[in-house]
Parts: sequence; structure tokens; C-alpha cells
Amino acid sequence: VNNIVLVGFMGSGKTTVGERLAERMGRRFIDLDQEIARDAGRSIAEIFAQEGETGFRERETRGLEQVLKEDGAVIAAGGGAPLRDSNWRDIRERGCVVALTAEPAELARRLNGSHGRPLLRPDPRSAIGSLLPSRMSRYLEADLVVPTDGKAPAQVAAEIESQLPAASIERIPVAVPGAAHDAVVGTRLSGLVASHLRRLNPSGPALIVSDAVVAASHAAALTDAIEAIGLAVRLHLVPAGEAAKELAVLAGIYDSLGSAGVDRDGALLALGGGTVGDVAGFAAATWLRGIRYVQMPTTLLAMVDSSIGGKTAINLAAGKNLAGAVHQPTAVFCDLNYLATLPDDDYQASLAEVIKTALIADAAFVAWLATNLPPLLRREPGVLRDAVSRSIAIKADIVTRDPQERGERALLNYGHTVGHALERAAGFGALRHGVAVAWGMEVAARISVLTGACAPEVVARQSSLLRAAGLLTAAPSVDRADLLRAMRHDKKSRSGQLRWVLLRDAGRAVYGQQVEPAVVDAALSEVLGI
Amino acid sequence: VNNIVLVGFMGSGKTTVGERLAERMGRRFIDLDQEIARDAGRSIAEIFAQEGETGFRERETRGLEQVLKEDGAVIAAGGGAPLRDSNWRDIRERGCVVALTAEPAELARRLNGSHGRPLLRPDPRSAIGSLLPSRMSRYLEADLVVPTDGKAPAQVAAEIESQLPAASIERIPVAVPGAAHDAVVGTRLSGLVASHLRRLNPSGPALIVSDAVVAASHAAALTDAIEAIGLAVRLHLVPAGEAAKELAVLAGIYDSLGSAGVDRDGALLALGGGTVGDVAGFAAATWLRGIRYVQMPTTLLAMVDSSIGGKTAINLAAGKNLAGAVHQPTAVFCDLNYLATLPDDDYQASLAEVIKTALIADAAFVAWLATNLPPLLRREPGVLRDAVSRSIAIKADIVTRDPQERGERALLNYGHTVGHALERAAGFGALRHGVAVAWGMEVAARISVLTGACAPEVVARQSSLLRAAGLLTAAPSVDRADLLRAMRHDKKSRSGQLRWVLLRDAGRAVYGQQVEPAVVDAALSEVLGI
Repeated sequence: VNNIVLVGFMGSGKTTVGERLAERMGRRFIDLDQEIARDAGRSIAEIFAQEGETGFRERETRGLEQVLKEDGAVIAAGGGAPLRDSNWRDIRERGCVVALTAEPAELARRLNGSHGRPLLRPDPRSAIGSLLPSRMSRYLEADLVVPTDGKAPAQVAAEIESQLPAASIERIPVAVPGAAHDAVVGTRLSGLVASHLRRLNPSGPALIVSDAVVAASHAAALTDAIEAIGLAVRLHLVPAGEAAKELAVLAGIYDSLGSAGVDRDGALLALGGGTVGDVAGFAAATWLRGIRYVQMPTTLLAMVDSSIGGKTAINLAAGKNLAGAVHQPTAVFCDLNYLATLPDDDYQASLAEVIKTALIADAAFVAWLATNLPPLLRREPGVLRDAVSRSIAIKADIVTRDPQERGERALLNYGHTVGHALERAAGFGALRHGVAVAWGMEVAARISVLTGACAPEVVARQSSLLRAAGLLTAAPSVDRADLLRAMRHDKKSRSGQLRWVLLRDAGRAVYGQQVEPAVVDAALSEVLGI
Repeated sequence: VNNIVLVGFMGSGKTTVGERLAERMGRRFIDLDQEIARDAGRSIAEIFAQEGETGFRERETRGLEQVLKEDGAVIAAGGGAPLRDSNWRDIRERGCVVALTAEPAELARRLNGSHGRPLLRPDPRSAIGSLLPSRMSRYLEADLVVPTDGKAPAQVAAEIESQLPAASIERIPVAVPGAAHDAVVGTRLSGLVASHLRRLNPSGPALIVSDAVVAASHAAALTDAIEAIGLAVRLHLVPAGEAAKELAVLAGIYDSLGSAGVDRDGALLALGGGTVGDVAGFAAATWLRGIRYVQMPTTLLAMVDSSIGGKTAINLAAGKNLAGAVHQPTAVFCDLNYLATLPDDDYQASLAEVIKTALIADAAFVAWLATNLPPLLRREPGVLRDAVSRSIAIKADIVTRDPQERGERALLNYGHTVGHALERAAGFGALRHGVAVAWGMEVAARISVLTGACAPEVVARQSSLLRAAGLLTAAPSVDRADLLRAMRHDKKSRSGQLRWVLLRDAGRAVYGQQVEPAVVDAALSEVLGI
């Protein structure tokens, strides 16, 4: 959904700015208070006089429900409407929220002599003093926070437009206990990221960790957007790819955090693929025993998988991801524009994780993919946004129930027992992660059938999805003994026992399954010909 | 308290072993079932027949309360008594708990033909099958778990005696949400540590991290005790002192964890002073995103301070403790024997933290210290045990309410703003931590008085305690400008603002206080003469 909802205190300029913003963007403008008054056939002041504030708030909630049914409108919500939690939830579900702010003195000046506003009686200045502080903390939760002091409405409207996402956003809650946050999916999200960082109110400069390749394309626009709202940033570059996940690279990030003076109230932003997110997230997890950080994944794989759920890690000589922490970000921003320049091979390989996510948990998503894989392969914006959002929503649900991977989170490793082992046996870097996972899914699905847990047609559906994504082309040539050794080495084997994630149906999987070696052998030979 | 309470299934040998254990140790033996029968003037079977199991359990709880009033007895608790949570709490509060175990077949053999046990009817074998599993999980929470299969009662008694602590233990709950555990204070705790490790049931060998000096004195006995109950251990040595808290040392621990095959179900044991606990704890916090670990502090400072609360860290070039995590251990074992060899200077300096703990939170402990500092300085066992236990209890309470140091935990930094800065300004290593903290406490107390928050006589009491501990001898000679710079550098300064912990009274402090620079200047000059 694509509404833009303006919130803010009386006098912040919601109506005047909203009208101009709607005009600039060629959208319809709706003023909630005007709708309520028209609906009631009376002025807001009359409603207050006759029904009290309680009566007005009831009308407001009903009116808000109505106007939020719009799609693509600019909506000025009443100053008090966001305070009711259910209203706020509805507003955030149905649009991008822009808060207009102004200093109390400026608000008093603007509201001087305004007689139609019942809440300002008897005296605007004292009403501002008593109402503003509590309302402000809600307004500051908006996607964009735009100060209006000393600016003409047209100028504020232009600023908002420049900071808004290019099109509709999806907001997916990641409700991990104690660390709930949102993943936002859309395009041109720099303005939202900047507002989020301001909300974090870091004590010093925010440190952006990125790699040189990503930074060359995307760091300048992001840095500009953050600096434009008055926050300081520093950029720290790490090597591209797995080379980022080294202890020495982690030490380099620590150095930059120290020299930038990032203290416990500081913040870090990871801008890049999964490797950047992993090492930067681990730095955030451990700097001063943990600071806040934001994930801005720039690859499809990082958007649908590694940026969600707070897993962070570095590699050691003894293996991948051996040192790390579970540390949730304060927000994840998935800017789909970043995917435009992704090489086809990388993009297609990442679809394996999307298909995996559907197969383990969401039959409807499996069906959706069967129809939508061709436009998804062409990266059509709407389809891409939906695929990313649905994948994130599924992972977010699983992670919320099992943040520390004590149980159910293992489902997300479907296809990874053999997938990881294939990567290791082929020599890391020889096989793309997604390509290996696709083959791993085929083996796991075959085992699911051989153990009688799953109907053969489910495997056929999986194979057809993976093939449609350009995967499963040539089986990787690995030695069987090497592969089995690598499987036993997998750190997901607990207490020495290899446990499998197996399919029960298209959209349902089970974890922690023991499988007879002979069955594994049969599946490996059927799928990989080894 | 010094009771030894035997628990275990019917037929595990609580009575026969208990009698022999009491005889060996020259203690009184009490059998709970016999006490209940005598008190009722009827046999257990008759009580069951006339009052049902419910009636018996009520008698059992009352009887348990009575026998636990003993001090220094060997008590055989009934097989079912530990199952009621309140009973279990009482048992653990009043003694060291020893569980006797045996295989089901062995139990059946021993119980064959035993007609006086109502719960075994109609048939011992099926009663064992239905009752044992649920009871076993409770028995395994005992301090010592001793298998009895194929052993004569005298042999079991000898084994228990060899694994028991040398004297009474104190058990202090550290009830951190989601990571509750106990700190156990006593002497000769290796047997208890071994039983705790077995309860953790690590998938591979447990890795003991220690330094060469500590390991030379204490590792062999500990390793023997652990291996004696059939667990594998590996020893990894780190440098002594602050040199342990380096990134390269952390990497070395990771290497050992990898080569020992420690997986997610593995465990680590930190045996040493605060520096060993910090780096080993950080390794445990981050290896495979977190494994379980046990703290065995070997210095007074580590026992009363760093081993409690889960703070782990390493130093970086930019400063001390800059990278780390909050990761609670599964248990803390403070073996007071380890303190016998501590140099006087180290021991006395650590008393600053004990005195600090009393001053911030416990007026009664302040008064106790005023009386007991002389024997505490002489390291008299009972006094030492009480001082350590009380310090831990206070820290545990604070940490439980604020594990992540968002607020109240800052109280524990009383004296540390200036203390840390003194260490830094004097050059790390030039000044003992406790010595610096003692001076820092004097400055903070002086500020407390100057700001009118605290009566001067409170400062006098603090000074007198610190002097009695051999502290506050010669004021460290540091440059005033260096000291102020080091204070601003303190990572406890949040958002650039220095916040102070100040005394309100002997036993009460407040945190987050802002203080005028002129007041700080005055206190520094009065206390340190700079």
C-alpha cells in the first residue's frame, strides 16, 4: 500500500503541507478532520462540545479506518489520532508515515488566535506544554521525521518528496522478544534510514560498514541523506565477499568504532551483502558489549536470509561462522533498487533461499512462486517486492518463536546439510551458496520421499520451481567420501548426530530428523549421481 | 550450613550409604522416613494405607523441615521428597545435596521382595519404569551425583566423602532472567564442579581455560576430579594477567575449541582470575554464537566481582574491555582454598571491591565489615566465606534486576570513575585495580558530601574500613590533567556526559549523577592533593 500519512502536532502544518505534497505527487489529498466533520455534519469544535473528547476519538478511529482504505493518497491524520495504539498500528500498516515537527515556540506562534481547536483552550501555550511531550514520542516513531521550523509549506513538501521512498513500502514486523523491530521493503529508502538513525539518536557519528564495491554504488546517496538531516557519519570499508569475515577485519571495525568515538549509545549501519552484515553485526554485538545497528542488505540473499534474525559471525581457520553472536538489528531496510545491478548468476542462486522459505512453511507462497517465477526472474518491481516481503515474513515468524536456534529455527537449514557440505567439498567459492542449497534441497526432498514422509509430487514441484529459477543445471562434481566427511563436519550436527530437515508437504517441513545412512546414500546417488 | 542430604530413588542406598558416610565423617545420621514413622507412631506403609500418598507427603514436608534444622548431619531424604519444589528449595538451602543413582535393572534387583514400600506395588519393575524418569531429572540437579551400580555401600560412602567440599558451602542464587544459576562458595569444590559438568552433559570434552601460574597449582586436581567421573577434559593455557585479554589469545581459544571438537552442546570452564574469566567467557559467548561455561574464579577480586554477572571482554589497542558480551555462566564455583596462596598485596587490594559492595547496598554488611576486617585480613575461613558470599549476593541481586547495565548495575561502578582513570593515568599495571578503586571511592564519597547528598561521618566510616584493609596508604602521584582526560575517556561516560555513582548513606548509593566540575576539582584536590 502506498498511502502517505502525515502526523504531527496541531500547527505542524499537516493540512497545508499535505495539500502541496499531494499536488506535487499528483495524488489525492484527504484531511481526516475534514472527513470527520463532513461525516458528522458539524465542526470538530461542535463535536467536542456535544460529545466530548471521547466521542470525538471514537469518530476519529472510525474515520481513520475509512480513509486508510485508500491506496495512493496523501492523508493528514489528526494530531491525536496516532496516540491510540490500534490507530497507530493501522496507520503504519497502510502507509508510509511522515511526522512534521516544530519547536514549541513556533507552534505557539502558528496557533495563536486559532479558535476552532478545542484542545488548545483556554491557552495554546500551556496546551502545547502539556500535550506535546507525550505526543512527540509517538510522532518520532514515524518513517520520516521532518522539522518544519522556518520553512514554507512548499519547501517542506519538496523535502518530504525527496526523502520518501520511490513507491509503496512493505513493513514486516520481526517481533523477537526484547528486540522487536521492522524490516522495510521498498525502493529509495535512504530518507527512511536517515530518519531511523535520528530516532536512534546516536551519541556520536554513525559508522557505516560497507565494502568498496557496494560503497562505490550506494554509499554517497546514503551518506548524503543522513548528513542532510544533520547526523554525522563515517564510512569504514571491508573487503568484498568472504574475505570480510576475518578476525583482522573485525579488529579493523573496532578500530574505526574507537577512533570515531562510538560509545554505548552509538550506532552502526551495515550496508552490503551477507558477509558485510555478518561481520559488521558481530562488531555491533560485541563493541562495548553491544551497540545498536541497522541492516541495509544489498543482495537478494542478504535481504531474504542473512539480514533477518540477528545471526552474526566471522569465519575462523577451522571453519565458517564459528565465532559469532545473535544480536538483533534495530531495523532492516531492503532497498530493491540495490538489486538492479546484481549479476544474473548471483540473483538466480539467491532464489533458492526464496523457494526454500516457501517450501518449509507456506503452501500459498509455493503456489504463488509457481505462477510468478518468470516475472521474478525479470526482477519486476512489484513481484520482487512481494517475494522479498513474503520470504522475510516467514523467516521473521520462525525467528520470533526461536531466536536462539534451540529448535524450530533449524527449519531454515532445509537443504543446507548437503548444501554446506557441497560448498565445502567443492572448495569454498567454487559453488555459489544458492546453487549448492538447491542441490541440497533436492537431496533432502528425496530423503523425505524415501523415508515415506512426503509424496513424490512434492519433490516434483520443488524441482520445477528450482529449474524455473535457472537452478539445478549441472550437478556439481564432488567426491562422495569428501561430501560425507563435510556433512559430518557441519556445525548443525549436534552432539555428533547429523539431523535433517525434511519435507512433509509443499509448505511444511520438520527438523531434527535422524536418517539411516543407507537412505542418505540412495538419495545422494539418485540426485547427484555419486 | 553443613548438612549433607542424600537423595535418590528407592533402592539407591540412601540409608545404608548414609549410615556409613556419617560414621566415616563422625556425623549424626538421620533417616527422614524413620523420623516420619516414629513421629506418626506407625510404619510408612500404614501411613500410606490410612492417609494416602497425599497425607504421607504432608508429613514428609513437615518432617523435612524439622530434620533440615540440623547443622552438620547426614540426612537421607525420602525418594519422593525432592519432587515438591518447596522441599527441594529447602534441601538446597540447608545443605550439600548428594544424589545416588543406579541403573533400573540394579534398582529392581535391590528392591526385589521389598514389601514395606507402598509405591512399589504391585510390581517393583513397572513402578521403577513409571516413576524413575521424572524423578531422575530432579536428582540430577544435586550438587554431587554418584552412581552406585556394582559398588558396596562403604565404597560409595568413601567416594562421596572424597568428592564432597571440605566444609560447609554457601549457595547464592544469581536469578538473571533466562539464565538463572548459582554461585557456590566453599572449599575443595572439584567434586561439585565435576558433577555440574556432567549435568551439562557436554557433547565433547570440556575445555578448561586457565593461565600457566594458576594451572600449575590447581588444574591437576580439577582435571582428575572431572576425569574420575568419566568426562573428558582439555586444558588451554593463556598468558597470566592482562596479556590474556588480547584478540590473538581469543583466537587461540577458538582454535582449541575447534580442535577439541566442542560443538553447540559443548562447555568451557574458566579457571583463573578476572582476566582468564573475561577472555574465556567471551570465547564461550561467541563460539558457535554461544556455548555454556562455568566460572571458577581463583582470586578474591574475581570471586566477588568479575565472575558474577556475565560480563566478558577483551582489551583493544584503543582501551580496556572494548569488545565483549554479556553471557551468563551456568555456575560459579568459588573455592576459597585458591585464595590461600594469593599475595597479600593482591588480596588486600581486592578488599576494596568487598567494601565498595557493602557501601552501595547493605548497611548491615558495612557494620559486619567494621567488626570482621581483622579476621578477614587474616583470611579466617568462616569470615572469608561470609564476606565472599555476602558480596556475591549483593552483586547478584543488582545484576538480576539489570543484567545488561541499562541502569542500576551502574551502582557497581562506585569508585570506578576515578579508579579507572587513576589506573590509566598511572599507566596500566602501575597501580592495582583495588588500590585505585579505593582512592576512587574516597573521591566519590567526598563529592557525595560536597554536593550535600551524604553526611561526612559516612565518609569517615568508609575511610576507616579501607584503611583497616591496608588501603589508602600513599596517594598515587598522577598529573591532574592526565587524570581528567582519562576520566572523560571512561567508557561509562554515556553520550559524552560523565555520570557519577554517589553515596547517600553507608549502604545506599545512587547512579547517573551529574556533578559540577568545580566540585570534582575540589574533591580531587582534597583527596589526592592534586
